[in-house]
Amino acid sequence: MKQVNIALYKTSIVIGASKLKQVLWYFTNVLILKNSFLPGTGIRVFFLRIFGARVGRGVVIKPSVNIKFPWKLVIGEYSWIGEKVWIDNLVEVTIGNSVCISQGALLLTGNHNYKKISFDLMTAPIILEDGVWIGAFAIVCPGISCGTHAVLSVGSVATKNLEPYRVYKGNPAIKVSERIIE
Amino acid sequence: MKQVNIALYKTSIVIGASKLKQVLWYFTNVLILKNSFLPGTGIRVFFLRIFGARVGRGVVIKPSVNIKFPWKLVIGEYSWIGEKVWIDNLVEVTIGNSVCISQGALLLTGNHNYKKISFDLMTAPIILEDGVWIGAFAIVCPGISCGTHAVLSVGSVATKNLEPYRVYKGNPAIKVSERIIE
Amino acid sequence: MKQVNIALYKTSIVIGASKLKQVLWYFTNVLILKNSFLPGTGIRVFFLRIFGARVGRGVVIKPSVNIKFPWKLVIGEYSWIGEKVWIDNLVEVTIGNSVCISQGALLLTGNHNYKKISFDLMTAPIILEDGVWIGAFAIVCPGISCGTHAVLSVGSVATKNLEPYRVYKGNPAIKVSERIIE
Repeated sequence: MKQVNIALYKTSIVIGASKLKQVLWYFTNVLILKNSFLPGTGIRVFFLRIFGARVGRGVVIKPSVNIKFPWKLVIGEYSWIGEKVWIDNLVEVTIGNSVCISQGALLLTGNHNYKKISFDLMTAPIILEDGVWIGAFAIVCPGISCGTHAVLSVGSVATKNLEPYRVYKGNPAIKVSERIIE
Repeated sequence: MKQVNIALYKTSIVIGASKLKQVLWYFTNVLILKNSFLPGTGIRVFFLRIFGARVGRGVVIKPSVNIKFPWKLVIGEYSWIGEKVWIDNLVEVTIGNSVCISQGALLLTGNHNYKKISFDLMTAPIILEDGVWIGAFAIVCPGISCGTHAVLSVGSVATKNLEPYRVYKGNPAIKVSERIIE
Repeated sequence: MKQVNIALYKTSIVIGASKLKQVLWYFTNVLILKNSFLPGTGIRVFFLRIFGARVGRGVVIKPSVNIKFPWKLVIGEYSWIGEKVWIDNLVEVTIGNSVCISQGALLLTGNHNYKKISFDLMTAPIILEDGVWIGAFAIVCPGISCGTHAVLSVGSVATKNLEPYRVYKGNPAIKVSERIIE
């Protein structure tokens, strides 16, 4: 059978920022975003905007957050990014209004083509529509769209698109109930 | 359909400590508890007790632990808190004797009412009775009681109470076997 | 029913390094390996080799990695260790060529005998053969062998050996498809 040879791997990703900007962000991410010291939200939102993220008013960003490329990030109004959330946005991640991403959740946009000898990188954007709740330590896989007000339960893994106003649970996540808002 | 509006969110949690104590704990947690440098156990137990935790003798607390409110934490004798354990105790968490919480495990006491427009915070205490073992990177959800000597396997998610002397596995965790101690 | 008494616990593990070497590694691990500042790979590979790891050429080791005992670690050529990977190798972990361990994955070699009053430590080595891919935040349990080119999907938990050229998913992970390389 054929074998993978990672020495043949080449990344084809379009980063979309100068080398200088990348390096500056690398250290800003470590010093400001990943930092577990800095309470509050303002300084993190400030630096995200400086580096090109579109962040609406009322957004809360907790300490110890990890964001790959802020210039590929859009966050609407009054959304929350919890402690230790990791937005690994090699490509665009779009987060709507009143979205809650709870602590430790992971948004993944990168995958590998494990059917290729060269183990090529594959990327796909993530969309979280208004009112979505991603539970603590849940994982959203590359290319997933979460319809408005979908809920992904704690520790669950979304490998398929989530329908609006539905609750999903498990690994892989399956639909378990409706979300009816009073 | 109705929509969540997180701008309406108000927390009703009773923190149970002065603002000064909260700020001092915030930085103690970052500098001492979350710290991955400090080996041993004594300094972490010392500060937890200073801030109101009840910690029995023989307790081991590894580096890189994250504890929300130590004044809402009780740990019995000879229990272990592993590396990177996160006790997110907005309300009481009670841990018995000879309990093992393995590395990376998460005890969650906070939830949101996703059926309300205002996405209200809901909290519920956690009880781990004597001899319980919470496996590595497992998650205990708000309000869960783990009966004496229950086992939650590695990476599993407890969404219902665990019966004594039973072993649970999966996400959500289901009962898979008995725990018979020789 | 009988009860666990962790005060009776004794570890029988053979560490395989002098006390001095252990202490030096403890701080090297914190300062260099776990460090989220240091980009690149060279400095981490350099220190791993100094402390006895066998690391092949072309290996990439990302920041924020946690390795227990480098003198019990073998990594082949052109393999990748992702950000926040935790290799908790109380005993030998052997990683082949062109293996990818994605971000946040955990290799666990320690377990406890929960049928003993003394909650004895049990350890078992892990083998990842050539071309294996361990997905992001997946967990490999103690004693597991992953056959050549097996894939463990994102967030999945391997509790049994993985067959070569097969894809596994879920917690616990089950076989879902073949991996055919073009």
